[in-house]
Amino acid sequence: MKCRICRKKAAVKLPSHNTAFCKEDYLWWFQKNFRRTVKRFRMFKAGDRVLVGVSGGKDSLALWRLLVEIDLEADGLYIAQGIGHDELPYSDLGEDACREMAGKLGRPLKVVRVLAETGASVPELEGILRRKICSSCGLTKRYLMNREALEGGYDVLATGHNLDDEIAMLFANVLTWDLQRLAHQSPVSPQRGPKLIKKVKPLCHFSEREVLAYTMLSGIRTMREDCPHARGATSIKHKELFSRLERDSPGSKRRFYKEFLRNREIFEQAKPPAELAYCHRCAMPTTNEVCSYCRLLHRVAASKEEVHDGPPKPRKIEPEPASPAPSGLCG
Amino acid sequence: MKCRICRKKAAVKLPSHNTAFCKEDYLWWFQKNFRRTVKRFRMFKAGDRVLVGVSGGKDSLALWRLLVEIDLEADGLYIAQGIGHDELPYSDLGEDACREMAGKLGRPLKVVRVLAETGASVPELEGILRRKICSSCGLTKRYLMNREALEGGYDVLATGHNLDDEIAMLFANVLTWDLQRLAHQSPVSPQRGPKLIKKVKPLCHFSEREVLAYTMLSGIRTMREDCPHARGATSIKHKELFSRLERDSPGSKRRFYKEFLRNREIFEQAKPPAELAYCHRCAMPTTNEVCSYCRLLHRVAASKEEVHDGPPKPRKIEPEPASPAPSGLCG
Repeated sequence: MKCRICRKKAAVKLPSHNTAFCKEDYLWWFQKNFRRTVKRFRMFKAGDRVLVGVSGGKDSLALWRLLVEIDLEADGLYIAQGIGHDELPYSDLGEDACREMAGKLGRPLKVVRVLAETGASVPELEGILRRKICSSCGLTKRYLMNREALEGGYDVLATGHNLDDEIAMLFANVLTWDLQRLAHQSPVSPQRGPKLIKKVKPLCHFSEREVLAYTMLSGIRTMREDCPHARGATSIKHKELFSRLERDSPGSKRRFYKEFLRNREIFEQAKPPAELAYCHRCAMPTTNEVCSYCRLLHRVAASKEEVHDGPPKPRKIEPEPASPAPSGLCG
Repeated sequence: MKCRICRKKAAVKLPSHNTAFCKEDYLWWFQKNFRRTVKRFRMFKAGDRVLVGVSGGKDSLALWRLLVEIDLEADGLYIAQGIGHDELPYSDLGEDACREMAGKLGRPLKVVRVLAETGASVPELEGILRRKICSSCGLTKRYLMNREALEGGYDVLATGHNLDDEIAMLFANVLTWDLQRLAHQSPVSPQRGPKLIKKVKPLCHFSEREVLAYTMLSGIRTMREDCPHARGATSIKHKELFSRLERDSPGSKRRFYKEFLRNREIFEQAKPPAELAYCHRCAMPTTNEVCSYCRLLHRVAASKEEVHDGPPKPRKIEPEPASPAPSGLCG
């Protein structure tokens, strides 16, 4: 197959777009589409300070670089979850990949450790809370990313969700017809009040495969390991299901997501955003008296027989300057 | 596994209900749930005359028997599509199975032949119209069933769509976010004006497997062959996809459909039913000047070099009395 632009031998085939590109033209196509998505959804204003949630994986590191390339003041935030062990130090590998990227981009990376914040690592939380590890991971990440973005004075929080992530989430919400979640699933969640940062997902129109091709062709070194706790996760099964569908009928994933966005307002009308309350302990947004994160802190403290009644315990924050990356730990 | 009711050895396991039944208690459970669905959706009024669209397959024959068992005046309608050949005379096998059931129930069966109605069998229509055979099959069936129900003075048209059929249709509509079709997908479509009969799908809450178990345990002889044109159909792929999902997470199919029905009104609000027009040729409901069925008639006539300008050509209808069934052709 030949490149659509220059007719040289293609390096990337895109069946869902019924086209193919050589390396240079693929990178051009990817960047052009990235800019188009950012513009169409009005993700940023001139002068915005952006915090990028990075994991060390391909999506978030690609996103960070793309944001810097369009001249945004984009800093990284790595939430260290304490996942992994000697043979596969998953979280450490992720952190190293993020530091390497910070060094290359010359931008600061902040690292926040779940263990220091809550008194337990994410795998320990599973035992304490008796709920699935992915749920504690999601809860702590959402809370800490929002808090760090607000406290750091950022305007927008950007995350690396790709088309496959969005589709797996959309399909899960459709399977149970969760109107509330359908109403909220969007490439842009506007700032709501002083305590809920604006969130954007600029890679939402690129498939996992497309982002992977971008990182490989542009020489971005990323952590390749999958989270050891993700095996058998429902979202992975849903992704496989849509991969089969896409093989049979190229373009169906993209259509499913795009048509949803075009019609999403019917869910918003059915379920307008609930009035936000603020947590009695930490003053962050919640729909309850005490937010889930503060309840988590309480459960961890109780499990250590030091019932925690006051405000969240003082945090140990490590500000991280932009630093040269250690080599050989990822990619 | 044991029967939930009598603790005897189970004949049917129902993972999606997390239960199992012996033969007698399964039939009792099936009939009870059938009556519950019929009642909940107010499918029939006392004294209603019902026309059942039958194909000779398990779903429609089970439905016909169940409707007669709840004392409805239910007659059969078989649309003969002229599908099959000497080795697999698909349509003939279906017709024979319907005649056998008509004999057993002591109810009349009407047979309408697509060839006599349109001048071409359904497989011939594919070549003439240059559209997929399943589309011509669906178009002729919908038109002829509605017309026969109206002309026969019936109150309701019942079809044997089961849960898997409904889910395949729902998923196809969700994949493209076709709001119009989502708004219309319902176990009951009310009568609209004098030319669009009320339609009901009383088996919509039973899976294919559950209906199959019902027909086998209650000794209903059905055509077992699949339509030779259905291979590779998208709806079959979608059914396989949901089967895998159901194996991983029993009950997910049922939840997907039930929660859709609970929330379906948001689609109705977004897309209220369009004002019906009536076809200039046959006076049946349409959204165009001339309905799709009359356009089909015109194309068939044109293909035979006798361009057809008048009203639909006179129909040759064969009224079919209830008749004893020929043996050995199905089951």
